[in-house]
Amino acid sequence: MKWAAISTWKMSFDGCKKTLELLAEGRKCDESLIEGVCMVEDEPSYTSVGYGGLPDKDGRVTLDGGFMDGDTLRFGAVGCIEGFRSPIRIAHSLMNYEFNNLLVGAGAEKYAEEKGFEKRDNLTEKSYQKYLSEKDKIETLTSYDGHDTVCFLGKDVSGTICAAVSTSGLYMKAHGRIGDSPIPGAGYYADSEIGSAASTGVGEDVIKTNATFRLVNKMAQGLSVQKAADETLNEIMKRLADCRSISLIALDKDGNYGVATNCDFPFVYGSDECEVSLYMARFVNGKTVIKKVDDISEVTLD
Amino acid sequence: MKWAAISTWKMSFDGCKKTLELLAEGRKCDESLIEGVCMVEDEPSYTSVGYGGLPDKDGRVTLDGGFMDGDTLRFGAVGCIEGFRSPIRIAHSLMNYEFNNLLVGAGAEKYAEEKGFEKRDNLTEKSYQKYLSEKDKIETLTSYDGHDTVCFLGKDVSGTICAAVSTSGLYMKAHGRIGDSPIPGAGYYADSEIGSAASTGVGEDVIKTNATFRLVNKMAQGLSVQKAADETLNEIMKRLADCRSISLIALDKDGNYGVATNCDFPFVYGSDECEVSLYMARFVNGKTVIKKVDDISEVTLD
Repeated sequence: MKWAAISTWKMSFDGCKKTLELLAEGRKCDESLIEGVCMVEDEPSYTSVGYGGLPDKDGRVTLDGGFMDGDTLRFGAVGCIEGFRSPIRIAHSLMNYEFNNLLVGAGAEKYAEEKGFEKRDNLTEKSYQKYLSEKDKIETLTSYDGHDTVCFLGKDVSGTICAAVSTSGLYMKAHGRIGDSPIPGAGYYADSEIGSAASTGVGEDVIKTNATFRLVNKMAQGLSVQKAADETLNEIMKRLADCRSISLIALDKDGNYGVATNCDFPFVYGSDECEVSLYMARFVNGKTVIKKVDDISEVTLD
Repeated sequence: MKWAAISTWKMSFDGCKKTLELLAEGRKCDESLIEGVCMVEDEPSYTSVGYGGLPDKDGRVTLDGGFMDGDTLRFGAVGCIEGFRSPIRIAHSLMNYEFNNLLVGAGAEKYAEEKGFEKRDNLTEKSYQKYLSEKDKIETLTSYDGHDTVCFLGKDVSGTICAAVSTSGLYMKAHGRIGDSPIPGAGYYADSEIGSAASTGVGEDVIKTNATFRLVNKMAQGLSVQKAADETLNEIMKRLADCRSISLIALDKDGNYGVATNCDFPFVYGSDECEVSLYMARFVNGKTVIKKVDDISEVTLD
């Protein structure tokens, strides 16, 4: 394929469509992915990313994001950043430095302010009300709803492969907690010589098992992208006694995708050979089963 | 071997000796490593770890640390924490939670305060004077002296393998920068079924290449610990156009060590079969050459 892109959750549909349009115009992988991710960050109805993201235990919306360029393995990332519009744009800009590629907290905010990135209070009334009504139940919350990270992987006409992720992280997380999303090899990985991968789920499990580096490394050893995704998920579920929900997307250097999940997981894929579509991945009898969705309105999972 | 430990740099000698004494008494791996690392954190003459650590660009001493338990793959880590005595103790305590294992900045400090961890201003007069005399040369500093992370790997009598790391990070780093030290798979990794690894060097390069997960994964595929270390270093140097200094230590599940480096790198190793000693690893003709040091005072590198 000349170009291709894959992204997580139904909420990424419009963004992924945009990314594919840009790739079709011959735009570079990094800018094409950033535009797509930013569309998701800007949409207040998605409560797990950017504007409208659910707050942490202290009622603050802190965001994580990461970007990796597969040509050079350079990355840029921010963790626990508050008060800015687009973590993915800030993360991407950090990729260009020799050092200091991963900035967190007040230091990340200082950098973003100095560089003139747009500010925004990301706490919406809807998210705040949900927080207020549930904050006294914090100790009993175990499901951690709302850990739906948006992840984009893409390949452009020049063969460059990149990965971009953005999230508000676990709902009711401790203040200062960062998950897998700012961390190469955990939340995302890209190597243009091999392929790329990204994850959504409980970040702590993804970090423990280096899920995306593990997956890309399997492709490097000759496994197909789907087999690499399946084997990675199997290994993680086998090794972690209490493995929670996790979904993996991957793209090989030819633009083929692979997806593995242990829950219900909608994703979006398209290329120059295949129109952008929503797919549903399900975990059935220990295996990931993928079906194209004909009527997108039938999928209720964001 | 019944027990073994390896640690980075000459500064870890007394700490590693202590760790080995505790392991010999049958103490658990985690507490034995923590005691050793903490001795290095407390020593003001070491300017790259804990008390006396060199400040960031803003003159603040912010510390990173990480701990991983190879039995469960659980980890705890702090990034960019300021004003506390022992990042490794705080990191280790975070391992016991289901979520929120990696805390950064103000959130990490809030947690440490709530849990009653000892506070300490880690900026010594000596480090502050060095900062004052060099801060106007920041833009021209390229060598980033003082990136000597202390890393401990150990195996106890029950076969548990753990990894523990602590650092003040790159000298003159941007405020908010975290390196590889809080990140499993980058600065450290431990899996009791396979072995463990840790790294010291330029954290950004280590993160890009998932150096320690990569190394442990090679052991999982059957490579000896030394061959796994050599191959990992070779792959990193080949893949990164501008690879900077990096040193890797590793311990397999039987307690054997492996070390690979592209600079001059002293390390410490001991076990129930082999007295604790300082070794010097050097990069000669593209290969790591290791020699036991007879007179420890001859080694000037901390």
